[in-house]
Amino acid sequence: MFDATTDIKLVVQAFAECWNRHDMKAFAKLFAPNAEFIDVVGLWMKGRDEIKKAYEFTHAKRFKNSQLTVSDVSIRFPSENIATAKCRWVLERHVSPDNKCLPARHGILVLVLSRNSKTWSIIDSKNIDIIEGVSSHPQ
Amino acid sequence: MFDATTDIKLVVQAFAECWNRHDMKAFAKLFAPNAEFIDVVGLWMKGRDEIKKAYEFTHAKRFKNSQLTVSDVSIRFPSENIATAKCRWVLERHVSPDNKCLPARHGILVLVLSRNSKTWSIIDSKNIDIIEGVSSHPQ
Repeated sequence: MFDATTDIKLVVQAFAECWNRHDMKAFAKLFAPNAEFIDVVGLWMKGRDEIKKAYEFTHAKRFKNSQLTVSDVSIRFPSENIATAKCRWVLERHVSPDNKCLPARHGILVLVLSRNSKTWSIIDSKNIDIIEGVSSHPQ
Repeated sequence: MFDATTDIKLVVQAFAECWNRHDMKAFAKLFAPNAEFIDVVGLWMKGRDEIKKAYEFTHAKRFKNSQLTVSDVSIRFPSENIATAKCRWVLERHVSPDNKCLPARHGILVLVLSRNSKTWSIIDSKNIDIIEGVSSHPQ
């Protein structure tokens, strides 16, 4: 039996695996051509190519050796061919703009996926930093 | 003709209107009972009741007189009865925990909506602060 939940978990794992080997070509292929991605600081990337370029840029230096671990994957199906997936993540071994090691960073990744024939692609993605102990960012 | 785009724009406007009159009962009704909402600092609210309580709390003080203005509403239909809506927002007249006026805050709201008979409800929502000039939050 075709198990959509398993397939989507594999996409989420692939997101982390492509990140961890810094293979932005494979990373971009997880997204539909017209996918959108809004990152932790509100950068709104429109289309697979913009997503690829933005992550090539960050993985050239700041995330060059970074390792992303995802957990607590939660999946829902608002319709047969549409899914939402959320997971918590920890990012380690990333550096500041002046190349200093940074402490582990925690966040939530939110994906909307669409099934086209048998393949699930990310059509929308948002990434959120968890900021403990505050209810809004420093203004 | 039934115009889903118009209906969804009305939901987005209603989000701001309920916020601006601080009517969290009406605000909560825009959400499906099992809706989830992840706010700007990664607070993950599960279910309409949690969403209502969290915003009742912030609107009792910090957002008591705040005014939210939405713009640039962008809507897509990954399937007939599922939509994503994104918009930019400006929040004004909000205060700090010690009741000091804060400057206008800018962000992006991302909604996933589902149509049940003729009504569109928010089933997933993420809110993102735009932080200019940085590529990640202060660690």
